Order: sequence, then C-alpha cells, then structure tokens
Amino acid sequence: MAIKRKKVSVIGGGFTGATTAFLVAQKELGDVVLVDIPQMDNPTKGKALDMLEASPVQGFDANVTGTSNYEDTAGSDIVIITAGIARKPGMSRDDLVATNAKIMASVTKEIVKYSPDCTIIVLTNPVDAMTYTVYKESGFPKNRVIGQSGVLDTARFRTFVAQELNVSVKDVTGFVLGGHGDDMVPLVRYSYAGGIPLETLIPKDRLDAIVERTRKGGGEIVNLLGNGSAYYAPAASLVEMAEAILKDQRRVLATIAYLEGEYGFDGIYLGVPTILGGNGIEKIIELDLTDEEKAALNVSAESVKAVMKVLS
Amino acid sequence: MAIKRKKVSVIGGGFTGATTAFLVAQKELGDVVLVDIPQMDNPTKGKALDMLEASPVQGFDANVTGTSNYEDTAGSDIVIITAGIARKPGMSRDDLVATNAKIMASVTKEIVKYSPDCTIIVLTNPVDAMTYTVYKESGFPKNRVIGQSGVLDTARFRTFVAQELNVSVKDVTGFVLGGHGDDMVPLVRYSYAGGIPLETLIPKDRLDAIVERTRKGGGEIVNLLGNGSAYYAPAASLVEMAEAILKDQRRVLATIAYLEGEYGFDGIYLGVPTILGGNGIEKIIELDLTDEEKAALNVSAESVKAVMKVLS
Amino acid sequence: MAIKRKKVSVIGGGFTGATTAFLVAQKELGDVVLVDIPQMDNPTKGKALDMLEASPVQGFDANVTGTSNYEDTAGSDIVIITAGIARKPGMSRDDLVATNAKIMASVTKEIVKYSPDCTIIVLTNPVDAMTYTVYKESGFPKNRVIGQSGVLDTARFRTFVAQELNVSVKDVTGFVLGGHGDDMVPLVRYSYAGGIPLETLIPKDRLDAIVERTRKGGGEIVNLLGNGSAYYAPAASLVEMAEAILKDQRRVLATIAYLEGEYGFDGIYLGVPTILGGNGIEKIIELDLTDEEKAALNVSAESVKAVMKVLS
Amino acid sequence: MAIKRKKVSVIGGGFTGATTAFLVAQKELGDVVLVDIPQMDNPTKGKALDMLEASPVQGFDANVTGTSNYEDTAGSDIVIITAGIARKPGMSRDDLVATNAKIMASVTKEIVKYSPDCTIIVLTNPVDAMTYTVYKESGFPKNRVIGQSGVLDTARFRTFVAQELNVSVKDVTGFVLGGHGDDMVPLVRYSYAGGIPLETLIPKDRLDAIVERTRKGGGEIVNLLGNGSAYYAPAASLVEMAEAILKDQRRVLATIAYLEGEYGFDGIYLGVPTILGGNGIEKIIELDLTDEEKAALNVSAESVKAVMKVLS
Repeated sequence: MAIKRKKVSVIGGGFTGATTAFLVAQKELGDVVLVDIPQMDNPTKGKALDMLEASPVQGFDANVTGTSNYEDTAGSDIVIITAGIARKPGMSRDDLVATNAKIMASVTKEIVKYSPDCTIIVLTNPVDAMTYTVYKESGFPKNRVIGQSGVLDTARFRTFVAQELNVSVKDVTGFVLGGHGDDMVPLVRYSYAGGIPLETLIPKDRLDAIVERTRKGGGEIVNLLGNGSAYYAPAASLVEMAEAILKDQRRVLATIAYLEGEYGFDGIYLGVPTILGGNGIEKIIELDLTDEEKAALNVSAESVKAVMKVLS
Repeated sequence: MAIKRKKVSVIGGGFTGATTAFLVAQKELGDVVLVDIPQMDNPTKGKALDMLEASPVQGFDANVTGTSNYEDTAGSDIVIITAGIARKPGMSRDDLVATNAKIMASVTKEIVKYSPDCTIIVLTNPVDAMTYTVYKESGFPKNRVIGQSGVLDTARFRTFVAQELNVSVKDVTGFVLGGHGDDMVPLVRYSYAGGIPLETLIPKDRLDAIVERTRKGGGEIVNLLGNGSAYYAPAASLVEMAEAILKDQRRVLATIAYLEGEYGFDGIYLGVPTILGGNGIEKIIELDLTDEEKAALNVSAESVKAVMKVLS
Repeated sequence: MAIKRKKVSVIGGGFTGATTAFLVAQKELGDVVLVDIPQMDNPTKGKALDMLEASPVQGFDANVTGTSNYEDTAGSDIVIITAGIARKPGMSRDDLVATNAKIMASVTKEIVKYSPDCTIIVLTNPVDAMTYTVYKESGFPKNRVIGQSGVLDTARFRTFVAQELNVSVKDVTGFVLGGHGDDMVPLVRYSYAGGIPLETLIPKDRLDAIVERTRKGGGEIVNLLGNGSAYYAPAASLVEMAEAILKDQRRVLATIAYLEGEYGFDGIYLGVPTILGGNGIEKIIELDLTDEEKAALNVSAESVKAVMKVLS
Repeated sequence: MAIKRKKVSVIGGGFTGATTAFLVAQKELGDVVLVDIPQMDNPTKGKALDMLEASPVQGFDANVTGTSNYEDTAGSDIVIITAGIARKPGMSRDDLVATNAKIMASVTKEIVKYSPDCTIIVLTNPVDAMTYTVYKESGFPKNRVIGQSGVLDTARFRTFVAQELNVSVKDVTGFVLGGHGDDMVPLVRYSYAGGIPLETLIPKDRLDAIVERTRKGGGEIVNLLGNGSAYYAPAASLVEMAEAILKDQRRVLATIAYLEGEYGFDGIYLGVPTILGGNGIEKIIELDLTDEEKAALNVSAESVKAVMKVLS
C-alpha cells in the first residue's frame, strides 16, 4: 500500500550509461542503479556518488548507486542496456556482433533473474540485432524489449533542421524508419517545422544534405571526438523512452520493435513508429509507404537480417 | 530593444566544463560557448554538438558551440573557468600553483578582451589563490570575480546528512567557511534538517565523521574513480552560482569572495557567506564566530596566504 | 552592467490575467506586475500576494505585485493585455467592440507611456480588431504588437486529437489560420500525431467533429462553467508567447500578426504562422493554400474587416 | 506488471481545489479527478477541461476530469479534501465546525468506499478538528490521514522574511508548531536565511511583526480580496505534501499529525514536524521545547480540543 519509488537500472557505466543515470535521477523518475563489470566497481561507485552529491544543488530526490553486483538491480521497473564494445580499427563487423551478443546474453540473464517484470531498453550496437538477442535471451514478451535508435536519429535531424531554418528545436519534428545509421530510412515527407512540411521550407539539395548528415550523425561525433562516441544525445533519447514508460505517457516515438507481420516483416526487430506507455510498446503504427520507401525499408531489413545471421 | 539571449562561456572542455555547459543549456540560462585549447578544438566541437543534439529531446532552446577561439566568447554575461591541471603524482604543490596561475593569467586576458562586462566564476584549484590571480589579472571590480567551493562542499555535506537521517536532500542545509577541502571550516551549528539543528538529530561521533568525510569529499571521488576527479557535483555548483547571477536571484550562498576587512582579513579571497545576484557578489554576510571557529578560519586563511606567496 | 530581471506586466486582474501572472512567475521569466482598475486595487494586491506566498513552496524567485497604478509597470519588457469585458446577454457585438476598443485605447496609452520599448501581446476579444486598436494607439512597429489566438486554438485541437487517439499531447500538433472561434481556418492537412498526418489516423467524420469542437472550444467552456469563461489554457498560451520572446526562442507559432501584403491582405491583423523571438514577430511564414483554404481565409478576413469598420 | 499512472483526487472544485488539481497535473504527479457536488457538476467539468486544454502548451501528460460522481475517484493514491464552507459574517464558530464536520463525514465515506488504500490530506478549516473527523470516519491508520497547515504558514513566513532581507525565498526556512492561524507557534529560533539564524539578521521588533503578519496571513488575503480567501499558496502547499508522498521523498515538513504521546498530547491532531513519504507520515520528530514554547503549544492544543468538543 505504501508508495515506493520506481527503480531504473542502467547496465554499462561508460559515458552514455552514466549520463543516462544522471538524467533519470534529475527528472526524479526513480532511484537509479548504475552497473558495470567488477573491475569497474569503484569507478562506477565514484560516478554514482558524484551524481548523488549534485542532488541537493539540482534539487532532486533520487538515490543513485554504483555496483557490479546485479543483486542491487533487483525489482527494477526499467533496465537500460548501454554495455558493449565499440568497433575498433581492424575489427570485423562480425567480431563486433559476436562480442556484443555475448555481452547481451550475459547481462540479460542477470537482468531477468533479478527483475523478471521489468521492461528492457537496448542501446548497444548493432542495436536491431542486439535487441533481438536480448529478446530471445530474456524470454520476455515482445512489448517489454525495445531498442533505441529513432529518437536519437530524429533528434539529430531536428537539430540540423532547426539550425538551417533558425527556429526553435521545439517546433521541428522528424521521422525515420528502419535501422540506425546508414540503414536509416528518413521520411522527410513526415517531417515539419511548425507543422509545415520541410520540403516547402528547405531547398531539396539542402534537405538531402541534412538527411545525409543525420545518417552519418554518429560518425560525425566520433570523428570530432577522436576518441569515443556521442553520449549526451543518446542518453537523452534513452531517458525519453524510459520516461514514456514510467509515466505511461503513450508517446508516439520511433523505436526498434519486434515485427510479426507489420510492414511485411516477420521475426525481426526494426525501427518503426510505436506508442510507448506503461506496457512498453503499446502499439506499432503502420503507415502506407511509397514504393521508394518500401524499397529502402527492405534494404534496411536485409541489413538487419545479415547481422542476425552472424548470431545464429 | 530586441531581447537577446544571455551568453555563458565555459573555459576548459574537460568533464567538469562539459557538464557545466550542458547544465547551463538544459536550464535555458543562455547560449553556451565551450572553450578549450587549439589541440582540443575538434573534441570540444564534438561535445558541444552532441549536447546540442540532445536539445530537441530534452526540450531546451540554447545554442551550444565548441571552440578554441576566444573571439567566440565575445559579449558573454558569465564566464566560468574550469581550465587547469590536476596535481599529478610527484608534482609539488608549488608547481601546481605556478602552472595553474599561468593558465589563469592567460585565459583571463582573453576573457577580459572579449567580455569586459562579464562576471567570472573560478573553479580551478587551489581555488582561493586562482580566483585571486584572475581578479588581479582582470582588473575587474571584486564583485565580478568569484570562486566556487562552498556550494560544492555543502552539497556533499547535505548528501551525507540526508543519507544518515534518511530524509530528502531538499530539507537539509549546511554551512561552511574558509577554504576548500582540508581548510574547510564547517559550521555545524548552522546546519539543519527541516530547520532542526543537526547536533540534536545526529550523535556527535557520527556528525564528526560526516564533517570529516565532507572535508575529504573530493579525494573520496578521486580514489573511487582511480583516474580523474568529480565533475557532476562541481558542475551543478557552478551552474547554481551562474543562475543566481543571471536571474538576479540574490541567493545566499557560500562563495570565495575578496575580503577587505571582513572577518578581520584584508586582500585575500576566502570562503564566506555572500548574497549572489545580478551584480555578482552583492554583499558579504558577516557572522559572529566562536573562538574555535575564528581559530579554524585563521588556519584556513594562512593556508591561502601561503599559496599566494608562491605566486608573488 | 548588472544583470536585471526581465519584467512582465499583465493588464487585467481577472482569472486569465491572474493565471497568466502566476505562470510567468512560476517559470521565473521575470518579475510580474498585475494591473487592474482602481476599484480592484486591493483584490489585485491580494491575488499577487497569494501568488508570492506560493513562491517558497514552488521554488521560484519572482516578485509578483498587484497595482492599479501604471507607474508600477515602468520598464516592462512584455505587456500582456487581458483587460476588457465579455459579451453579456442582450449586448450587441458592436457594443462589445466599441467598449473594448475604448479600454484598449486607454490601457495602451498607459503602457506606452511607461514601457516605450516593450512588446505587447493582446488577448481581449474580438482579438484581431483589438490588436489592431492597440497597434494604432501605441505607434509601435508591427512586430511589437501581437495578438493571441492560434496557440490556444491549436492547444484545444491537440487535446481533442490526443484523446481521440489515446496518445500523449506532446506528440500531437495542430495548425490554424485566420481569426479566432468561428472564423478559425484549421489546416488539418498540416496537423499530425507523431508526424503522421491525422487524415490517415482518424476517420473523416471524427476529424470533422474535432475541428468543429475546436471552433466552438471557447463556447464549450463558457457553457460548462455557466458563469465566466476559460482561463487556464488561454493563460498558458499567452505565457508560451511571452516565453518565446523573453528567451528569444524563435518559436514557430500561429499568432495574430499585422499583414502588409502577406496572404494577399493589407492593413489588417490576422492569424498566420509566425516566428516569435526577441524582436516579437520575427517573420511571417507564407504557405501555399488550396482554393478552399483561401476562400475560408477570405471569409475570416472579411469578418475581421467588418469588426474594424465598427471602430473607424 | 504494466506501469500505471498515479491518481490524485481533489474534493472541492473551488479556487483552491481547482488550483491544486492544476498544479498536480502540471507536475505530472498523476491523473487528476476534481470532485464537487452534483449542482456544480458542469462547472467542475468545465474547469477540468480548461486545464486539460492547457496541457499541450505547458507540456504535461495528465488526464484531468471533473465530476460529481465519487465512482470516478476509484483507486486514488492520494485524496485531497478542500471542500467545506468558509465562515460567513454572523456565523458562530461552532456552526462552522458542525457544518464542515458533516461535510467531512460525508465525503470521507465516499473516499474510503472507492479508494480504501489512499492517503488523505485535509485542508478544510478548522483543519486540526477536520482532520480528526476524517481520521475517525475513515478508519484509516493515522499515518494515512494528514492535515495541512504548517507548509502554508512557513511559506508565508519565508516570503515575508525574504522581502525583509531582500534575498531569495529559496534560502529562507521557517518553522511552526501547533495549530493554524492565531494558534500557530512559530519557532523563530529554528528559522534561518542561508543557514543564519534570523534573530541575528533581523531586529526583534521587525521579526515580531513578521511573526504576527504570518499568524494573520490568511486574514490579510481575505481582507484584500474582499470576497473569498487565498488559494495559490494553499494549493501549492497541498501539492508539496502530495508530491512528497507520491514520490516517497521523505520530506521534513510540518503537518497536522495524530499524536499518541508525542509532545505530551494524546488523541489529538496537532501541527508538528514530520517526515512525509510513501507511507504518508513516516515519523513524528520530537523537539526539546523551551518552557515558553511548551506553554504556547498547550494553548494551541487547548484550542484544538475546544473545537473537538463541539464535535463530540
């Protein structure tokens, strides 16, 4: 009967995981447990304590703890997976897939053991295949295993459009389908500034350049940083999804969802428009696509399947 | 006549600087310019872009840019200095002081050149001496050159007390005088939970332990992280001070202020309770101290003077 | 050089004016002066004091004062006009227009006297004509006299659509042109849920019903209340406009703007998509309209002109 | 397993009730049901709809509904009672007590029927006795029936102190014991600005005047308004209490709690410092009082008992 705080666990205490933990705490969405491997136990505890010490100043009540012990995640409402390795020079994509899939399998086992009723959000790349791995390993119903990519991709798209038009990011919307990065299928005709279709506001060549920049948005940051990859916008995207679920907001967000017939695909995870609420994915929204869009989505799906083949 | 956004520049694009920039943008306090040295130009641009790409999701309108060119800071309302090196193993304290003082002198010259009307907030350690260096170099009136330490120290103290009593951080207050870290003079008799003096709520030995932990709060994080130092709580503290000034809130906050007779000191920067508003330090609040407190404050002041001697 | 808080004056201390004042203070957009006629001086002071007494609990620093003396509004950045009478049973529309125009003329004189550099936002009905009256009386450039109607109309539309689809209001956008109420020209083809055109998500008859309900949205509240009219959503809409200007956000919002050739009209105030920023109306966005939409906009404009004729 | 939004019902759709409902929705604390008597069904629905129509603009996801049917409150987590009449000229205090007690009994029956697990917060005056009535009628454990008065009284006190010292309300704390209004026992020695005891910052006569003004704070607003009483600060206070419970924040707040031996009283509701969390009142904090404070608290308790006698 007593009201208890919600609980969010974030697997992976790197920059993205830590930033995600901080943003969750800042919004008072619940108590936060940041988890990393035993070798990183102390640094993870250090980051968590540092965040907690920001709480009196930022004015939030949320416990933030760091750990390498999955027992501490027990009873989580949401678990966010940011763990995994990034592709290193000389590493084949297949090696990346195999390594991260192993990590997914291992963390999922622990997550499920301690939080059998949670909803899992996956960020680890290649995200479509990793979400699938987590889904299979968890045995959870499909609505409770969700991948992130569309929120981030549209955030980047919206940023570039807002700069191009010199207007508030609040009034720009974007829309993508399919996989992350190069496989992304941006639906420019469903993207607007103040409700006005972008195609009527931005010349085609500029809009094409923005789409291309969005596709390569992750790489742009990697190249600038020189060492490491983006974490502010990815973390913000994960938290938007977590918030939609924790507050049962029924947000309409592009997420990586398990398809069973939708858009003509079956048994794969792919980026589609969904309604995100207290049940996780409440609904997949199907759109009529043009032939061109269908073809692009097929390419995207083939790419996902190719990765999945590595895993089987 | 047109209303323009406020502008905040953050010097030093490391973890603290970047986190400070993000928190300023998130609160829509103004546009943010993150500055680092030319060798770090690209990574700084990368961090800034990543933050900007979080803006559509987090819902803030603030431009965030990274640069190594001080021209981009022109017309800042607030400049926050986080630049400087941390003490490395084997480095003498005097070497640290000399190196950071050189950095302060160099960045201050640039700040003053492009933002002659700004208020400067200094975080770089040893903060009392570094704030003094910036003050001298800038030629600014004393109310517009301020050091940070008390907001962070009390944030840590409040965190530990809230944990000890298992109550909200929102209802715990703390109070410190003097320098940062070991030189800190915590006034426990001015610290409360829900207005109730802590001395009546927490046994003396526990309270002593909390005070001691607060004094060593920076070191605790350094030890846990293994590599690097705290940045979430320091950044939050800097942003609280910047917000107080940018919104002319007249907050009562412990800051490093230039004393001219107050508390019996003259010509040094020391941590004291101040009113922070649109003019920077609007007022230094003087308290009656016990003999014990006076003695502790003297020790703290002597320590500051010893560092300053290195600089002269 | 010192940073001063922004200042917002709200003319008319009724429910809408008071709620507007509260929302401005809550967001710390600036200090707020709530103004009413001398006979209402005390009640206005009472409301302002009550709001101020909420500030420690809600955590905002903003002075809120009530007055009947326009001197207290001196130096306002934004002035919002909610003053005026509502149509009473038996009152002709022309009488309403004449009475409110007289009130606009009188308050504008005072506003201009004490805040010659402010931007004025008008809510008083009939809002197109009243904004025109304020514009003429003020002698201000057109970008600094703006009427509210589209933000409120689209807010209602978005509410009804979100209910119909059972999704978050955050993901629904709407679009209107022309006058307020019956003269409103909703552009459903520019309205979306999660970027998806509403026409593909909601059956035509339901969508028509929502449009019709939006048109009569003000009346629906009047009928339910029995006595008085809506004030929460109108106040929120005014504050969104004020915030866009005070923070120079360059929001894309439908506002009542002075047209000089745009959309084929000249010398009248009409609801159109605009960019709202630090200069007030930064830009009017022109759209290609269908013949049907053009015809509807003409009807709306004729209706505005008919009201303006009463005033000449 | 699905996450559901919290639910808050507000009984009494007058200014305080409506403002409370709006602030709850604005903070996304849960869905809100505003309840009034059948004769007010339509106006209550009108207010709720108006609030809901503000949600797209203010950016909150919360359903707000108006009703006169208690079935709609089913499953509430928190129920806030603002219903009741205000004392009218010529009405004896005993008549007021009797009438409001009848209202409390009637609404409590309905609340308990539909939300047997909720926590009830009472605002209706005389609040100590009315909270007792609700407690008895509900059969709830004492931790789940709580009266409001101290949060509001301290909010007023803090406002006046902040004005006196010209500092931020964020840095002023206050402390009261005992009943509401004239029976209030302000503990000035537990009240601070920036942690500094007010007695050292404000001359005694000014501080006495502030205490006196706080005691009569409700009357000051009544006199200014001429018609009606304060509602912004009371609503904000109720919402602070509801938030502390809904987010299990363990805030240290002065509330009207049922005493069983604490402070030497038994079987009465009286204003004392408490910890407010997911279980409602988690703890009553006992303080050592001076003889003078004890005497004042006794007077306050006698006054509460006198009112309770009317009810027996």
